[in-house]
Amino acid sequence: MPEYVLCVDQGGTKTNIARGDKNGEIQDIRRFIIDLSDHAIVVKQIFDAIDVYLRENCIRLGSPLRIGMGVKGYADREKGIWKRCITIPNFTPVNLGEMAYDKFGINAVIDNDVHAATLAELYYGAGKQYKNYIYYNIGTGIAIGIVSEGKLIRGSTNYSGEIGHMVTETEGDLCPCGHFGCLEGVASGAAIIEQVRRGLSEYPQSGMHNINSNGTLTSHTVFKMAEEGDVLAGLVTNRALRSIQLSVISILNIFNPEAIIFGGGVMADGLLLPKIKEYAYKYSLRPSAWALKEVCLSKLGANRVGILGAAAIGWEDSI
Amino acid sequence: MPEYVLCVDQGGTKTNIARGDKNGEIQDIRRFIIDLSDHAIVVKQIFDAIDVYLRENCIRLGSPLRIGMGVKGYADREKGIWKRCITIPNFTPVNLGEMAYDKFGINAVIDNDVHAATLAELYYGAGKQYKNYIYYNIGTGIAIGIVSEGKLIRGSTNYSGEIGHMVTETEGDLCPCGHFGCLEGVASGAAIIEQVRRGLSEYPQSGMHNINSNGTLTSHTVFKMAEEGDVLAGLVTNRALRSIQLSVISILNIFNPEAIIFGGGVMADGLLLPKIKEYAYKYSLRPSAWALKEVCLSKLGANRVGILGAAAIGWEDSI
Repeated sequence: MPEYVLCVDQGGTKTNIARGDKNGEIQDIRRFIIDLSDHAIVVKQIFDAIDVYLRENCIRLGSPLRIGMGVKGYADREKGIWKRCITIPNFTPVNLGEMAYDKFGINAVIDNDVHAATLAELYYGAGKQYKNYIYYNIGTGIAIGIVSEGKLIRGSTNYSGEIGHMVTETEGDLCPCGHFGCLEGVASGAAIIEQVRRGLSEYPQSGMHNINSNGTLTSHTVFKMAEEGDVLAGLVTNRALRSIQLSVISILNIFNPEAIIFGGGVMADGLLLPKIKEYAYKYSLRPSAWALKEVCLSKLGANRVGILGAAAIGWEDSI
Repeated sequence: MPEYVLCVDQGGTKTNIARGDKNGEIQDIRRFIIDLSDHAIVVKQIFDAIDVYLRENCIRLGSPLRIGMGVKGYADREKGIWKRCITIPNFTPVNLGEMAYDKFGINAVIDNDVHAATLAELYYGAGKQYKNYIYYNIGTGIAIGIVSEGKLIRGSTNYSGEIGHMVTETEGDLCPCGHFGCLEGVASGAAIIEQVRRGLSEYPQSGMHNINSNGTLTSHTVFKMAEEGDVLAGLVTNRALRSIQLSVISILNIFNPEAIIFGGGVMADGLLLPKIKEYAYKYSLRPSAWALKEVCLSKLGANRVGILGAAAIGWEDSI
């Protein structure tokens, strides 16, 4: 019976659960839709989902070695506490590690989801090739993972990488953080959809009216419509692209990395990548550009690197 | 005869030379004005200055253990090559390490000046108290040094920390890097003076006309005049302050440091510090603000940390 860890990736709109072996092979990914309207419901539903998964997908395999949990926001990895997530109403700190042990008798490791994905790159992906790189996640939210000399830079309290509130539009819209024109308010998946919805009344000809009423509006459909000439889609896409480009230049000049590896739902279709890459080489300072070997999507799969991250933190702890 | 290193701090407008002992005590600082109009002249004058200093200030002390040289721009520390400095015309890469050995028979260590100052903090200053901090230099140019887990983060080719080209004014002026609205184009010492000079014709009442014609216009005089109500000085000061504040928020959210330590001529008088500090605590994400213990001027002296940096790289290499 092969050893495995249970991988739990708590995303912005769903929770993915899977089994991961120590080589980074992922099996039986299941997606659980979570009601994000209240903190207590979120925590209960995550544990219910783990319970379902263990019963239905692990029953003949014995217990996992660990549960690795990547969560949005601020995580105290040492103590297993999920400390803060501003997008979930009524959030209060909760010790997921203790809860998991109490419920399932399994040790759990908690970390920020983008730190986790960065560790997935370190063990299974870009880390095999590069010692200094940035994992750049653009999904429901935006953050980076910083790897220097083969090591994840965590910051003083495991809260590094929150680039989503870099100001990229000095005259931009108010962000919940108190600033105007934050990157995340323009270029995250949530922000892209929101901008389209706000713009629809001004663009009655836009093809996105139909898609929106279907409920299938995603950043991918917006980027595709932009390529096909839809004016509103083009405005929203270019605005997001511009902010991402500016943030990439700052990243290159500040970190001098060998590579930037993109993951997350907004980047997964690869449509924005060519223009980000071109801009990166053109506008970063010359020594930064000379050092840069690659600007690419995660070779682990931009949509799969999150769940692999949960595997990575589980294995890291059990070795 | 006590051991010492020769400290050479090649600044934006002058070169400082001194002796440094292994405890970070600096003696006999001398300032040499360097003609920065051409690369060949700069290199010759730096070596002439070292020669003068060795003959006049070190004659009875024997040779220094090392020459530590902090230079602006891009330095290959391993090979001793000063590779790039965009503010010096006709710049070509030059092996300062070999030149120093050929001329004086002394081994020299070359590093970027802000990396050097960050190491000074690490060995003699903030590093005694903090493991994760940012040294933030605002002088003729702008850059940061990143310390994580007690170690300077150098990037893949020793070019980390170039935050000066973060865009802080989306509709700002064109920068030589190709972007509009770079931090360094608004808030560096050079930019502050330049903005005042450009503004003088529009503000005939400004008290800075006299100071400018005296040739004594510095960022300090601009900040003082702003406090005294001079309109032009106020506009330039607030513009610089605003861009520094935005960059500080990004630094806090990206690095999650315990401290930001300021150095450099623009920060040395401390006049901008209270408003930067207030902004840092107010607008950084809450976990970043909770982790932040100090926003302060270098306790080594904002004007002295550069020369101490040259001592630090010399000693680091000779231990």
